[in-house]
Amino acid sequence: MAFATIDKKILQELEKLVGEKNILVRKEDMAAYSHDEFSSEDIAHFPDVVVKPESAEQVSCILKLANEYTLPVTPRGGGTGLCGGCVPVHGGIVLSMERMNKVIEVDAENLMAVTQAGVTLHDFYKAIHACGLFFPPHPGDEGAHIGGVIANNAGGARAVKYGVVRNFVHGLEVVLPDGDIVHLGGKLMKSSTGYSLLHLMVGSEGTLGIITQATISLLPPPAVMYTLVIPFDSLSKAISTVPDILRNKIIPMAVEFLESKTISITEALLHKTWPCHEGEAHLMLILDGSNEDEVMALAEQVQEIAMARGALDVLIASEKSKQQTILDIRSHIYEAMRAYMLEILDITVPRASIADFVNAVHRIEEEYQIWLPTYGHAADGNVHTHIMKAHFEKGEWKENPGWQRKYPQVRKALHDMGKKYSGLVSGEHGVGFVKKEYLDTFLEQKQIALMKEIKKAFDPRSILNPGKIFPS
Amino acid sequence: MAFATIDKKILQELEKLVGEKNILVRKEDMAAYSHDEFSSEDIAHFPDVVVKPESAEQVSCILKLANEYTLPVTPRGGGTGLCGGCVPVHGGIVLSMERMNKVIEVDAENLMAVTQAGVTLHDFYKAIHACGLFFPPHPGDEGAHIGGVIANNAGGARAVKYGVVRNFVHGLEVVLPDGDIVHLGGKLMKSSTGYSLLHLMVGSEGTLGIITQATISLLPPPAVMYTLVIPFDSLSKAISTVPDILRNKIIPMAVEFLESKTISITEALLHKTWPCHEGEAHLMLILDGSNEDEVMALAEQVQEIAMARGALDVLIASEKSKQQTILDIRSHIYEAMRAYMLEILDITVPRASIADFVNAVHRIEEEYQIWLPTYGHAADGNVHTHIMKAHFEKGEWKENPGWQRKYPQVRKALHDMGKKYSGLVSGEHGVGFVKKEYLDTFLEQKQIALMKEIKKAFDPRSILNPGKIFPS
Repeated sequence: MAFATIDKKILQELEKLVGEKNILVRKEDMAAYSHDEFSSEDIAHFPDVVVKPESAEQVSCILKLANEYTLPVTPRGGGTGLCGGCVPVHGGIVLSMERMNKVIEVDAENLMAVTQAGVTLHDFYKAIHACGLFFPPHPGDEGAHIGGVIANNAGGARAVKYGVVRNFVHGLEVVLPDGDIVHLGGKLMKSSTGYSLLHLMVGSEGTLGIITQATISLLPPPAVMYTLVIPFDSLSKAISTVPDILRNKIIPMAVEFLESKTISITEALLHKTWPCHEGEAHLMLILDGSNEDEVMALAEQVQEIAMARGALDVLIASEKSKQQTILDIRSHIYEAMRAYMLEILDITVPRASIADFVNAVHRIEEEYQIWLPTYGHAADGNVHTHIMKAHFEKGEWKENPGWQRKYPQVRKALHDMGKKYSGLVSGEHGVGFVKKEYLDTFLEQKQIALMKEIKKAFDPRSILNPGKIFPS
Repeated sequence: MAFATIDKKILQELEKLVGEKNILVRKEDMAAYSHDEFSSEDIAHFPDVVVKPESAEQVSCILKLANEYTLPVTPRGGGTGLCGGCVPVHGGIVLSMERMNKVIEVDAENLMAVTQAGVTLHDFYKAIHACGLFFPPHPGDEGAHIGGVIANNAGGARAVKYGVVRNFVHGLEVVLPDGDIVHLGGKLMKSSTGYSLLHLMVGSEGTLGIITQATISLLPPPAVMYTLVIPFDSLSKAISTVPDILRNKIIPMAVEFLESKTISITEALLHKTWPCHEGEAHLMLILDGSNEDEVMALAEQVQEIAMARGALDVLIASEKSKQQTILDIRSHIYEAMRAYMLEILDITVPRASIADFVNAVHRIEEEYQIWLPTYGHAADGNVHTHIMKAHFEKGEWKENPGWQRKYPQVRKALHDMGKKYSGLVSGEHGVGFVKKEYLDTFLEQKQIALMKEIKKAFDPRSILNPGKIFPS
């Protein structure tokens, strides 16, 4: 790719478009825009300029300019991604959506919200809850922007019963690389009107267009939600309980599996206490329903199944604050482990294969003698294995000897194992920069070729988020 | 488009591929393949040959041949479509999927079914139910094939709570126009691995590839289902009750609105009895839940809301057979009306706009003096208006004078009204042949241009289902 250089003249044009104070060019100001939350800063790249538009029209003008001069444009939401998706690996323009942060409308009649792309999940939940409504997905870090969450088709813990973000996106305003603005879908529950450009845009990681606004369906909140924590003396016992729960026709909102050690580390970071410290591994379930009796009956069924599978105990949290603590700790494990982490993986496998897959992960852990704490979404098959450069023992971090050498080997072994279990490289984080080398392990060449053709149709000059998704 | 003619040599090659008995060339044998269930036979076109492959490999060989010679290929499922999507308007090959009719696997551990594309909905439900599982969508005619249902992103009545067919498709085997076979997704609940070719394929109406196999997620069946029938003295009273139900945080599985007159006509066809004959218009709701108490409590809440809105009565069917009768009558209205119908429309609008939109439909009915019986999916915004050439009065059909002249005017007025209410031309039937002239009323030119680019990337010789979706 032959991109042009951003010179004074271009900077002046950008300034004219968004105003001087919405342009950053000094290195110290741009540092925060050079990386995402991926564990290693090695992948950081500085842009030449950070531009902060406030409207789709401004985004359109910026893209027109970039397209004319062939300048790379890397869109950036909350910067909470985990695979370098918003890192400007070719420099150029970082298009930060932070000023497009208004929830435009919560439409209770249609059970739809219309929001700008730069609204954080935190602010979105707040606006929705204020209207007595509910957006089921909870993709971890609430600093994520709605636009980023859609561009990566995020999932999170609460996707088992209600599905991933894709299921809730009904309309999108998108600025295309040539500056044209399109309005896909709307406040519509059903559509069979031509190819779904909307669903193509979901999960396209900012490479086909810039999402500036979204129409998202909502639900009435469940009347009752309980969170269960169930300790087991081994991870495989914990995970193998899950198919039994599903087979008994119980579909929880969330089913997570976690290792005790990672919970302790996170408790220390947050100064919060997990409800139970028994056992090596825990299941965390969220059950919902229309009344206390119904949810308690479900909880009791889960208890019975879990005890039959060797659970050490079953703790039921019905108070909101206790449930929030549990969700907080679960959501911050990554942060707690990050300092000693090489990478968090995001392999997705069929849900019935999780126990076998995680056992295989532990065989790789044994073989390479490198700590691979693994947690994830037990009922939807999305497994987060952490490749660690250190392990935690008796309250201290100790370096895993030889991690530099082992890292690429372990990484490959884990992904090969994901492939063996009919999985894909990413369940919810996206491919971004970090995982693109694995795309052709998981997808047929023909699929990648078709994706590249689509990319070419949308973005013939390859200005949008270059260097992402595709291996070459 | 310059398509080649199918000559003896090509017929012989096709015969070699699938065997003589799986090829039809005689006019009388091909008549059934010249149309779908669209009301007018005017749109019928004969193919030159009907080919019935039994495997993806055979489909691949047929497409390779067609691509080499530039022959039009029109895929055909159950032929139950309502907009000519499977009509071979350019002649050539009709690729009938009828022999690919095996449900390959119902995987209870993963809550997934793997099925060939030519399985009918009826057989699919049967296989699923036999394993104690549940596939929520019910797109009307159970003679539809799974492949067609996916290719059109069908919806049906039971989409309010559980969503449309798209939400349940997790894996597809697709044969591309050049004969390459790709395997999209899998038994995976989550995926963010490159552009979603899977979701692009859903709703592409057989123009991008031939779906030969699908992996579909299932749910445990609801423990209890009740069907409610609620008569009102006007359609607008009936419809305006629906937002109240949703606002009270009740999400039924289905909410349909119907006019009494169309119900009577259908009762006569099926020799079955609808549970109530009061009032001009009815709501039909399906409520589900985990036990009798819960569903009864919901039913009572609905009753209270409906009575406050002027309902004449509320009938609750809890027996399976009674509920089946109601669903049967609802599913056969189209068939009952068809002989005197010009067209069934499939406009989708925001659900809160249904009452206003249907009122507008009735103003058009008044203005043009042409009967426009309208029913549809009240809680998901999908409205089926029928443009009739006759009306039913005192047990007899009477021709609407001047329908020939009025038809195109009324059709345009209705679609313009759909546009005014921020709708789209199709909620679940697809665009096909019949509705393509309205695509650019509803979609921006740029969207259509991008869709055409995608078409070109997948099918550079335009052999697959030519003459569909796009106005030109």
